[in-house]
This record gives sequence, structure tokens and C-alpha cells, in this order.
Amino acid sequence: MHFKALALALTAGALALPATAQFAKPEDAIKYRQGALRVMGHHFGHIGAMVNGKAPFDAKAAQADAEVVAALAALPWAGFGPGTDQGVPTKAKPEVWSDHAKFEEHAQKLQAETPKLLAAARTGNLDQIKAAFGPTANSCKACHDSFRNR
Amino acid sequence: MHFKALALALTAGALALPATAQFAKPEDAIKYRQGALRVMGHHFGHIGAMVNGKAPFDAKAAQADAEVVAALAALPWAGFGPGTDQGVPTKAKPEVWSDHAKFEEHAQKLQAETPKLLAAARTGNLDQIKAAFGPTANSCKACHDSFRNR
Repeated sequence: MHFKALALALTAGALALPATAQFAKPEDAIKYRQGALRVMGHHFGHIGAMVNGKAPFDAKAAQADAEVVAALAALPWAGFGPGTDQGVPTKAKPEVWSDHAKFEEHAQKLQAETPKLLAAARTGNLDQIKAAFGPTANSCKACHDSFRNR
Repeated sequence: MHFKALALALTAGALALPATAQFAKPEDAIKYRQGALRVMGHHFGHIGAMVNGKAPFDAKAAQADAEVVAALAALPWAGFGPGTDQGVPTKAKPEVWSDHAKFEEHAQKLQAETPKLLAAARTGNLDQIKAAFGPTANSCKACHDSFRNR
């Protein structure tokens, strides 16, 4: 009964996710979410390198990176549906499913920040990018701290 | 000397790619390109299912899918730089590097088709989506046939 309630809750949550993300098997969902997060992380990391002075600032590249980040921010979460806690190696903690509402809150937070980062990147002004980068990075970190194994 | 010439040619090719895609190690590049291709393939596959009547047509979903495909079409190629033929399992054939110009031609072809698919998806008209889907699918297939192991 407990598990049925959980499954129903997760299904209800999943219905709020894009209808486009349907997976034939857990492995597909896991690889999909990992792919989306990796690509997003790569481009976000490049903005971070510029923000932290570890890479030369290139306004055009920063904008392209932010476009990718914003385009991908909504995607990974559909890959965390019920039953996708195993199949191929994953760093997702059981809390992704046992505390799914909190997990989705983090996902929403990211999607609230990335358009601001993109708007900042479109100005071409590094200070504005720096100001928007921090909150976005914090939203990544907060979720990783709670929901991702090292 | 032969390898040096090849390396130079690949480097020259790489310079034409987005400056944003720089990787600390081959593994990062391979996982990046696989991630981008997987996410793109997932959303393209969903359009295909609608085009082929295997999924109900949902104009809004098709547009969202096409947006992702168009946003990702430029990305994977930067992950095929020199030295990224091994490190983690990859289906990329040696021809990706030995016939890089042809490989890049395929990559360009895809990037020429995906905006047309997106434009079609934005009309919300399934027939227009069908018309644009075929050439895009062919560009995927042509490259896979020549450059990807099964």
C-alpha cells in the first residue's frame, strides 16, 4: 500500500514533465538524463571558467554556452521517473525518489535561474554574468549535495 | 610526418568548431558527444514516432522536440577532436578521424536540416513535419552508416 501510494505520487509528478520524454527502459532514461546533465554541465563549466578567470572571457562563447544551458535545463528531470534508480551505473541517491517533491523543487529552481543567466550572457557584460552565475551554480550544488552520490 | 599532417589537419578542423567545447581528457569529450547525440536522438525519435503514427501527434510536443534537436545539432562534433577515438567505449569508427572532412560534411548537413525541421514543427502541421523529417533522418543515417559501428 505504501509503495502503491508512492508509485501514484511519482506518476502524478511525472505527468507534469514534458510528454516528449518517454523511455522504453530504465537504461534509456538514465543515459538520457546523464547525457543532458553532462552537456549542460560542460557548457555551464565553461561559463564558470570565464567567471573565475580560468579561461579568457569570450562574450560570444558565453552566450552560446548559456543558450545551451537554458535549452537543456528542463530536460533531465523526465529521466528520473519511477524505476529509473538502477539499470546502468547512476549517482542518483534513493532520495530522488523517496523525496521527489524536494528534488523537483531543485529542478524548478534551476529552470528559474538559467533564463537569468542567459539574459546576463546576452548583455555581453562579464559582471552581469558573474552576478547570475552564482545563484545558478548554487542551485546545481544544492541539488547535487542532497541527491547525487560522489 | 603522416601523423603530424593528420594532427594539423584535425586541429585546423577543430578550430572551426565552437570554442566553448574544450575537454580536459578524451573521456570527457566522448561522454559529451554521446550525451548530446543521445538527447538529440531521443527527441528526434519522438518526432519520428509521431511521423510514423507510432505515437499520437502532439503539435506542442513536436515543436519542443524540434527545438531541442535544433539546439543540440551543432554540439556533438566538438567532441570528436584528435585523440578522442578511445578512452571509454565508443562506436565511432576510425574513419571519423581518417576521413574527417567527410564526417564534418555530414555534421554540416544535419545542421542545415534541423532548422527546417524546427520551422516545420512550428507550423504545427504534421504533413510539413513529415516532409522535413525525412531529409533530417537521412542525414543521421548517412553519417551513422559511414562513421558509426553497430
